[in-house]
Amino acid sequence: MAVSPFGSALFDGSLDDARVSALFGDEATISAMLRVEAALARAQASLDVIPVEAADHIARTCEAWAPPAASLAAAAARDGTPVPALVAGLREAVGKDWADCVHRGATSQDIADTAQALILRDVLDAIGERFSALAAALAALADEHRHTVCVARTRSVQAVPTVFGLRAANWLSGVARARKTLERVRADVLVLSLGGAAGTMAALGPRAFETAQAMAAVLGLDCPPAPWHTGRDRLAALAAWSASLAASLGKMGADMLVMAQSEVGEICFEKAGCSSTMPNKSNPVLPEILVALAGHAASLAASMHRAEVAANERDGATWMLEWLVLPQAVCAAAAATARALEAIRTLRVDPTRMHANLEASNGCILAEAATFALMRDMSRDQAAGLVKQACAAASRGVHMVDALRALAPDAVVDWAALREPINATGHAGALIDAILSDAGTATI
Amino acid sequence: MAVSPFGSALFDGSLDDARVSALFGDEATISAMLRVEAALARAQASLDVIPVEAADHIARTCEAWAPPAASLAAAAARDGTPVPALVAGLREAVGKDWADCVHRGATSQDIADTAQALILRDVLDAIGERFSALAAALAALADEHRHTVCVARTRSVQAVPTVFGLRAANWLSGVARARKTLERVRADVLVLSLGGAAGTMAALGPRAFETAQAMAAVLGLDCPPAPWHTGRDRLAALAAWSASLAASLGKMGADMLVMAQSEVGEICFEKAGCSSTMPNKSNPVLPEILVALAGHAASLAASMHRAEVAANERDGATWMLEWLVLPQAVCAAAAATARALEAIRTLRVDPTRMHANLEASNGCILAEAATFALMRDMSRDQAAGLVKQACAAASRGVHMVDALRALAPDAVVDWAALREPINATGHAGALIDAILSDAGTATI
Amino acid sequence: MAVSPFGSALFDGSLDDARVSALFGDEATISAMLRVEAALARAQASLDVIPVEAADHIARTCEAWAPPAASLAAAAARDGTPVPALVAGLREAVGKDWADCVHRGATSQDIADTAQALILRDVLDAIGERFSALAAALAALADEHRHTVCVARTRSVQAVPTVFGLRAANWLSGVARARKTLERVRADVLVLSLGGAAGTMAALGPRAFETAQAMAAVLGLDCPPAPWHTGRDRLAALAAWSASLAASLGKMGADMLVMAQSEVGEICFEKAGCSSTMPNKSNPVLPEILVALAGHAASLAASMHRAEVAANERDGATWMLEWLVLPQAVCAAAAATARALEAIRTLRVDPTRMHANLEASNGCILAEAATFALMRDMSRDQAAGLVKQACAAASRGVHMVDALRALAPDAVVDWAALREPINATGHAGALIDAILSDAGTATI
Amino acid sequence: MAVSPFGSALFDGSLDDARVSALFGDEATISAMLRVEAALARAQASLDVIPVEAADHIARTCEAWAPPAASLAAAAARDGTPVPALVAGLREAVGKDWADCVHRGATSQDIADTAQALILRDVLDAIGERFSALAAALAALADEHRHTVCVARTRSVQAVPTVFGLRAANWLSGVARARKTLERVRADVLVLSLGGAAGTMAALGPRAFETAQAMAAVLGLDCPPAPWHTGRDRLAALAAWSASLAASLGKMGADMLVMAQSEVGEICFEKAGCSSTMPNKSNPVLPEILVALAGHAASLAASMHRAEVAANERDGATWMLEWLVLPQAVCAAAAATARALEAIRTLRVDPTRMHANLEASNGCILAEAATFALMRDMSRDQAAGLVKQACAAASRGVHMVDALRALAPDAVVDWAALREPINATGHAGALIDAILSDAGTATI
Repeated sequence: MAVSPFGSALFDGSLDDARVSALFGDEATISAMLRVEAALARAQASLDVIPVEAADHIARTCEAWAPPAASLAAAAARDGTPVPALVAGLREAVGKDWADCVHRGATSQDIADTAQALILRDVLDAIGERFSALAAALAALADEHRHTVCVARTRSVQAVPTVFGLRAANWLSGVARARKTLERVRADVLVLSLGGAAGTMAALGPRAFETAQAMAAVLGLDCPPAPWHTGRDRLAALAAWSASLAASLGKMGADMLVMAQSEVGEICFEKAGCSSTMPNKSNPVLPEILVALAGHAASLAASMHRAEVAANERDGATWMLEWLVLPQAVCAAAAATARALEAIRTLRVDPTRMHANLEASNGCILAEAATFALMRDMSRDQAAGLVKQACAAASRGVHMVDALRALAPDAVVDWAALREPINATGHAGALIDAILSDAGTATI
Repeated sequence: MAVSPFGSALFDGSLDDARVSALFGDEATISAMLRVEAALARAQASLDVIPVEAADHIARTCEAWAPPAASLAAAAARDGTPVPALVAGLREAVGKDWADCVHRGATSQDIADTAQALILRDVLDAIGERFSALAAALAALADEHRHTVCVARTRSVQAVPTVFGLRAANWLSGVARARKTLERVRADVLVLSLGGAAGTMAALGPRAFETAQAMAAVLGLDCPPAPWHTGRDRLAALAAWSASLAASLGKMGADMLVMAQSEVGEICFEKAGCSSTMPNKSNPVLPEILVALAGHAASLAASMHRAEVAANERDGATWMLEWLVLPQAVCAAAAATARALEAIRTLRVDPTRMHANLEASNGCILAEAATFALMRDMSRDQAAGLVKQACAAASRGVHMVDALRALAPDAVVDWAALREPINATGHAGALIDAILSDAGTATI
Repeated sequence: MAVSPFGSALFDGSLDDARVSALFGDEATISAMLRVEAALARAQASLDVIPVEAADHIARTCEAWAPPAASLAAAAARDGTPVPALVAGLREAVGKDWADCVHRGATSQDIADTAQALILRDVLDAIGERFSALAAALAALADEHRHTVCVARTRSVQAVPTVFGLRAANWLSGVARARKTLERVRADVLVLSLGGAAGTMAALGPRAFETAQAMAAVLGLDCPPAPWHTGRDRLAALAAWSASLAASLGKMGADMLVMAQSEVGEICFEKAGCSSTMPNKSNPVLPEILVALAGHAASLAASMHRAEVAANERDGATWMLEWLVLPQAVCAAAAATARALEAIRTLRVDPTRMHANLEASNGCILAEAATFALMRDMSRDQAAGLVKQACAAASRGVHMVDALRALAPDAVVDWAALREPINATGHAGALIDAILSDAGTATI
Repeated sequence: MAVSPFGSALFDGSLDDARVSALFGDEATISAMLRVEAALARAQASLDVIPVEAADHIARTCEAWAPPAASLAAAAARDGTPVPALVAGLREAVGKDWADCVHRGATSQDIADTAQALILRDVLDAIGERFSALAAALAALADEHRHTVCVARTRSVQAVPTVFGLRAANWLSGVARARKTLERVRADVLVLSLGGAAGTMAALGPRAFETAQAMAAVLGLDCPPAPWHTGRDRLAALAAWSASLAASLGKMGADMLVMAQSEVGEICFEKAGCSSTMPNKSNPVLPEILVALAGHAASLAASMHRAEVAANERDGATWMLEWLVLPQAVCAAAAATARALEAIRTLRVDPTRMHANLEASNGCILAEAATFALMRDMSRDQAAGLVKQACAAASRGVHMVDALRALAPDAVVDWAALREPINATGHAGALIDAILSDAGTATI
């Protein structure tokens, strides 16, 4: 009954990513909040704020007790957060001896935000794993096709020759930059929240700072210099990162859609989509999904920037906006990594067709190279003029280079070399190496 | 396992609206698609395109057969739409005698888009029902408080006196305009899609137009002049309408948040939210939710505008973006109507506090009225100058009107009348009437 | 010194539209505000609220006086609106005799919002004019190419045959729907604002409603039932309309970009863009601009939805957000109409290349048609199976229809007719007629 | 004639920031592009790719020649970038001897993107300078008010006591995090673009990499590992950073709007805005502007994420979307820093009113503290129950602490200490120190 494809069985494997979605689900959310309460108790016990026995008992209860989400819904709707009802239930489950040691000095947002950090850690771990596979696959693709000459297209039209490996390396480049930035983002968001009612840590007692540090240690999170109840740039940075990652993969998708077009035909996918009415068709569904997810994540990032404008010491309206937005933004990025990996793995490259597309202009694609070749003997204007004439001739069936040779018979040009597109691919190979090296995938 | 609060049990009643969410769920989606296939068969049978017996059998199968969403997921991921797998399954369920009469001449998008129209009808009906209740509640509130004098605030600060009923009437005004526009939006989106593979209706045979009309009639949808596979302004208009409705209710929420602030204290809610650590607190959660939902819907509307830029005869990437976005946009609006109604119903207005806030400025809130009163005897500049002086005196404890009288003893002013804020509320009553009348709620 | 290309000389003719931009410029804004002040005076004079002589004098001054924008900037920054400084300056220019009759009973927002309505009228008139030209050009294009057979592409790949005229008709369809909706939008936004300090019309005196009506009449605007200081769905609807118009033209741009690709080559533009380094290139700049403007307008629409969430009786923060956003949203749509018209006018269609693309699949594009042809003699499964086999043969050089004939020699099929793509274009002609008729351009 | 307030004289000082806007203007853009062409020539001369004499001549011409923006507009519209026309004009200005040495091996996007990097450097320098002033001002404010007790508000209502200095420190915290991130963002965007026609550096000849390094050195930019024609996450990160910076200042604005409300009255601004009709009013315009700018920047960031989805080797549509969006996003952040500084500098804090607001609840604001105080003697439930009773009594006029003492006469509580709000501000002072230290402003 999920409204969005995220969490929908029908769209698992396309727009959704069940593995990552589940990490954000009701059950996982409740479990994470209970782990946070347990960690608070443990931290306080380690500092003699509450008895060790209490902490042990609370921690065991947090592990054993699993209230169904629906049982918390009514109170969550009243309170604008499920935490008060969860704490009340937990205190009851813990029993009156140690009930008072539960949630001591914390505020609801501390629990919910820290639980979110735990969830995000699992999610970012999952994405991080895929990064390795994705980077390796892209590096291998780039390496494999370092000599596969093909058409470079700029502003939608054929420009000059390049190699397909460089295009793949550029895809890798986007993934690699997102991967590097992930470290910063993790440092930003995998942090404890423990500020108490209004961020003064008042009810946490004299050992508040030590409690925060101990609790962060228990949970394996960082402890920020001060509470961040309204310092939400951390989460906005995560959403922006998610949007950029989805966009980098969306760029790959956009490129693939061009290459997969019938008239271009340079790639196809092993398990392409079927049509319900056209037996001839095979649809490049995976790249479409990548473009769609990028579009979704982009708008969500805007909402997270809005949610940064939180009023007062804690703001319910902007906080709830985050709940509506952040999980989806991250899931969109996660689903994109999964789909991108499938796309690379099922990609079939057609070098013959790439070559045919390169030849289709009858040599016009070599215009820039030809101009530069002629410029050794004449001015740029003259060279460009002759090349334009030769391109016009090419449309009448002569190869552009032959036409040019006829127009500039005295020019000192290696005409045979000029005719070979591979000679016009510049530093493509060195650039592939540079990108692979920068991505840390050079040795693959 | 829904990522977004939409479809989450934990957030049902706050950010979610289980009733409306369920209408967009996997089960409802599959059921709607099967109803569309049944309607196509019935329409074709009515025009002798397929035998009536076939249509009967198909329709019965569509009612009885309910494949679990998960069973379609793998094929949906491959095909970028669940329809081909659904059609294949339906053909098998129908049996080979009439299998060929299933989905005849339609394309996947026809089925999915028309199914979405059916879902949207149910959703918009649900919202429409709430409109009646909401409009009635707001009209009653406006009417009840047509003499409840209170502070009008502009640019965050106290401006002049008004009545609370006019504020409530302005809330009604937003709802009423959304309600009127709903008719246009329904006309836009409650339409059949039947264009075949690429919108030429080729495989629908010679009676294609009649088939579309008959099918639309069976389903109770409108039949547009031509297929709209890539004419998505219809759906973008729905998203924009949803965002505007959510925003109108978000505006009410924003007003309520101001009035519910401790320092303002003009309203509270019967069942306000509890804090997990502060027994004194009572949080205005409902208005916060309204503001949050408005924020979410706004960004989603942008994505729907992007999804209008669909390439070619049908575009998978923009279509899938719609799936990620549209249901949520509509659900945000639906949830907002539900929460708004709860907010109105549980609203407690405190006229005493409203009066106290009005008095707090010691008469300065009457500055505009005083200036205009004096202007009968002197220039605007002189009047404003005296009023400024009187306002300064008010901060030292004298009532502004008394101070002014002392400053302009000869002015012909009904000082007692000037002192009464109700006399400075202008045409508030007439404006309430005008808004109620325009909203069609005048007689309530 | 405009930051955005809107209002930049460098980008006039590409991303900007100097004619429409100028309507939103500083000078035009000041002039419009002065016209509003004049109209208020005239309306009040007509109701004996102020002397006719005063109104005459004020109106003359409003025409003659033109303060430079920079002279108002400091005060506008302090006041959060240029109106107080403008009114002060105007009062001075009017002279002390009638100074008090200036701006009587109005609030700054009344003047600024009404001035914006005047500007929007000019802008929407300009767009409206272009609509006629655009609709006519598209209708002519659709009509001219009603028999130009070409490839319909769905989900990026070749699907079935269609005619180019139907694609053009679909572009018209988007424009025609925006044109129809424009009437509603004009009714929404071409309205007077006159609510006074906080929307109670208090300082406008007993004849406030009549003043509003008279003032609206003077300005040729509608008079809404009540002030709309915070009822901003009107403006959000304009932004959404602008975004949808830009998106409809962006869709045309996206289609053109596909067709203009070197490998597709079905269209080009007379004055296509030059490259600074590649003499062979000719870039489809106009369609790119259409896609870019659509993208910009989409995000801006989201901001306008946010700005609907205005707190209190008037909200400075959301109002200023509108100033940052609305003019650009409308200008993006305006620039898009100008560019779209240029694109249509300079479009060169290549029916030969369209035909070649159709033939490139060696008949596979007829797969749907072939399946339906065979289904008269066999089951859908059998037919689809044979067609798949024939499509496979087509990739080896035989025409798919010949291969199919060899596979199903006994099928009663008009093989020659099946081979002609035009016979598989279904109801394209009738659909063109339906769209032209719906667009009101049928007779062109 | 700027459509957006950016670049509008009327809005300079409010929504605009003339200093930073001008850096993005037509003139500055043309000048930056010419500096890039000069640097390319110098770099190539240093590597013997072109004669030193040529480079000298080109560089001098680039300095002297300043074509008016309007003269490039028509060609820019045709080409989708002003660079080809600029290069043509420059070649003419350079004269035929060295014309061929101009723009050698570069593509238009290299020039425009690198010019943008130069502009961004100036812009980010300007913002960076303001950061220092802003951080110092905020640190001083936080320090000054480390003992100014006031109400902490959560979810719109009074929660517990805090000190105003901690609120100011939290504002600093947002600015300080943006300041730290600026270094990363500078590293991302202050980079050379030099990829040639399609990113292979083909026409740059054998010394392409060295040329790039030399050119970057001339311009003081970084040289990225590979061309980034379609690797736009760099620019999206800048937009996200701008949006987060604007949002952090928007959060300060939102806090200020609450505090400046008449009913709260804790702050005002020296030069607050005037009303055109209410002499009593003083509008908190600066914080409104901060909120508005944050809203604008948020949506623009979404567009930059869209623009990351660039197809092929270079994409005109997404590139032009950047021109529409990025300058504005950065200017919004820049204007926000300017306004924030003005806001801090003209801020007047009213500790008396802060104290009065604290006292207004008659002790209920001490509920959390009281509960914890009692918990030494009884269970949390009992304590919270008594506190609730005492809070109820407080609404009848008794101070909550007195009422509580009467209810729990035997509890071992320092009643006098409990009554002092400063004792309930927890670790506010230590947190201020921590934030100042983290912000690097501790010693100020």
